[in-house]
Amino acid sequence: MLQQFRVNQDDATIVQESDLRNSIAPIFEKMGVPADDARVATDVLVLADLRGVDTHGVSNMLRSYVTGYQNGQINPRPDWKIVRESPSTATIDSDRGLGTIITPKAMEIAIDKAKNVGVGMVTVGNARHLGMASYHSMLALEHDMIGVCMTSCPPSVVPTYGAEPRLGTNPIAFAVPAKNEPPFVFDAATSSVAGNKIGIARRLGSKLEPGWLADEDGNPIMEEIDPPDKYTLLPLGSTRELGSHKGYGLACMVDILAGVLTGMGYGAFPGRPNFGHYVAAYSIDAFTEVDAFKETMDEWLLMMKNTKPAPGHDRVLVAGQPEAEMEAVRRVEGIPLHNDVVQYIRDLCSELSLPCSF
Amino acid sequence: MLQQFRVNQDDATIVQESDLRNSIAPIFEKMGVPADDARVATDVLVLADLRGVDTHGVSNMLRSYVTGYQNGQINPRPDWKIVRESPSTATIDSDRGLGTIITPKAMEIAIDKAKNVGVGMVTVGNARHLGMASYHSMLALEHDMIGVCMTSCPPSVVPTYGAEPRLGTNPIAFAVPAKNEPPFVFDAATSSVAGNKIGIARRLGSKLEPGWLADEDGNPIMEEIDPPDKYTLLPLGSTRELGSHKGYGLACMVDILAGVLTGMGYGAFPGRPNFGHYVAAYSIDAFTEVDAFKETMDEWLLMMKNTKPAPGHDRVLVAGQPEAEMEAVRRVEGIPLHNDVVQYIRDLCSELSLPCSF
Repeated sequence: MLQQFRVNQDDATIVQESDLRNSIAPIFEKMGVPADDARVATDVLVLADLRGVDTHGVSNMLRSYVTGYQNGQINPRPDWKIVRESPSTATIDSDRGLGTIITPKAMEIAIDKAKNVGVGMVTVGNARHLGMASYHSMLALEHDMIGVCMTSCPPSVVPTYGAEPRLGTNPIAFAVPAKNEPPFVFDAATSSVAGNKIGIARRLGSKLEPGWLADEDGNPIMEEIDPPDKYTLLPLGSTRELGSHKGYGLACMVDILAGVLTGMGYGAFPGRPNFGHYVAAYSIDAFTEVDAFKETMDEWLLMMKNTKPAPGHDRVLVAGQPEAEMEAVRRVEGIPLHNDVVQYIRDLCSELSLPCSF
Repeated sequence: MLQQFRVNQDDATIVQESDLRNSIAPIFEKMGVPADDARVATDVLVLADLRGVDTHGVSNMLRSYVTGYQNGQINPRPDWKIVRESPSTATIDSDRGLGTIITPKAMEIAIDKAKNVGVGMVTVGNARHLGMASYHSMLALEHDMIGVCMTSCPPSVVPTYGAEPRLGTNPIAFAVPAKNEPPFVFDAATSSVAGNKIGIARRLGSKLEPGWLADEDGNPIMEEIDPPDKYTLLPLGSTRELGSHKGYGLACMVDILAGVLTGMGYGAFPGRPNFGHYVAAYSIDAFTEVDAFKETMDEWLLMMKNTKPAPGHDRVLVAGQPEAEMEAVRRVEGIPLHNDVVQYIRDLCSELSLPCSF
């Protein structure tokens, strides 16, 4: 994440992880969510904040989840069920349950199937937002499995050469265990920039980079700009010449796996507030020796980190490394939240007659 | 593919598909490849040419395959075997067999497993180049399955902020059947540009776009240039600001699945001429009703194609559409090959005492 998207220290309040958990979980319970589910929903948000994925922590997501419960778009006690199943696959109708809560259950099913037959793959339709996608993929790690998570989001991204949004930001998350090194954890939107970064930039008064947005007519904006009122997002690659057909194609892949393959719609249909999800677990033991694999991953991760840097750069990072470093710091020092966000949570707690721990 | 990478009509000879097949298959047989395998290797090359994927047709690949057989780097009669297996997975040691020949066999195994348990996933180590990755993913289509293919290539791509190549161009191919529309077929390198395009640009005297290459020190080259002598490729996204960490992360994902997960190395180790492959087949029937899925895919594909275009563009394309259109033309009109390539094949046939059909 680019430095400009970190909250400025002067505008921030440091909140300890445990205080945040203790304040957030009761909010979900007040929304009618069972206690165990509220704990999971809280864990997804707080882990995003701990890992520095501020786009998907409490700052950006809590308000929309609360609003969704309050206006009935999210079902706090969904009667989710498996509607189709095979030894390695399942399809779930989530009954409008929050994705942050249902997706870990889907991943548990995928992991069980992978234990039995090598691979487990589960799609979730009729669903709602799942938070930080890597949360779900990382659930596979402790089982010595590779975890995958994708989510088909409502349209905000134009196809290459297109003037109308047809695809969501459709992220791909992919987690792989290592031996002594932090795991490889990739989690990225297939758009040029995560949708939530535009809102964060507006709140922080930051400029946007060239290549992130298209204007109202679909023209890629290739200069630095202030966040505009009307825009669509560009696929990863920004322009055809830079490879936007690849970002567009990857977004399509996610829309098919996490959307069409559920049998319950896709990004553009029925559209917001609907989402579709896809999780998979691959048992490493089904392919090769687990210990040797994890040792090779250590060697591979160190090779990436030890790459000679280009001029002007201190070091080369590998996916999951900055997040693991940030998590180590924030578990001790706490999480910096923008004062507006802190005030929102305090007001919400007060409105719901709940204590706030900070 | 950008227009500039098409061979100029004045420099081209039109060769009919059947003539090309009849001339190429005996070359493989002369290399010691059994007749059935030679037929498959030819089919992979010719289908690339028919679909307009000139980077992976006879023009770019035949010479390197012939050289590999002649210098012993590719084994014409590999004793390939499954070294580990589960109901949904297998790992193959390809014994240095050409990937264009072994990967279809791996995909056949994946398809059989998907028929039995819903998903089949096969890695192939100790391998050689597999040609156009989408060829293998498309083998799933006639079984009403989604096909996936990835290949871990020798290093040519720098990590974000890096000055040394650590990853290959590591393509991802993904094929999905539809009902009346041509299938969705995505096939793209995770680098900003396919490696072979630099060679084609040099042959055609074309300029390279900004954002494709890094200079010797690892600095992204962000202006239009002639193909330089020394360079590395940039990941999809080109620069950190435009999202190159995403292309880099996707290339890593491919290197792990098609490399580390084979237990027989990865892109940088042991390096050229080694490759690793990954194929998967997902039975649509294991997730949802096949007919309804294919009807939804038609609706979804038409939605993409009917997107209002941005100014200056006639239409919005979807992955697999330009290739299907090109294939329809070239099956009738023949394949334009650069005269240098035609001469190379004629000379090679003469050297091997084989007839050339054109």
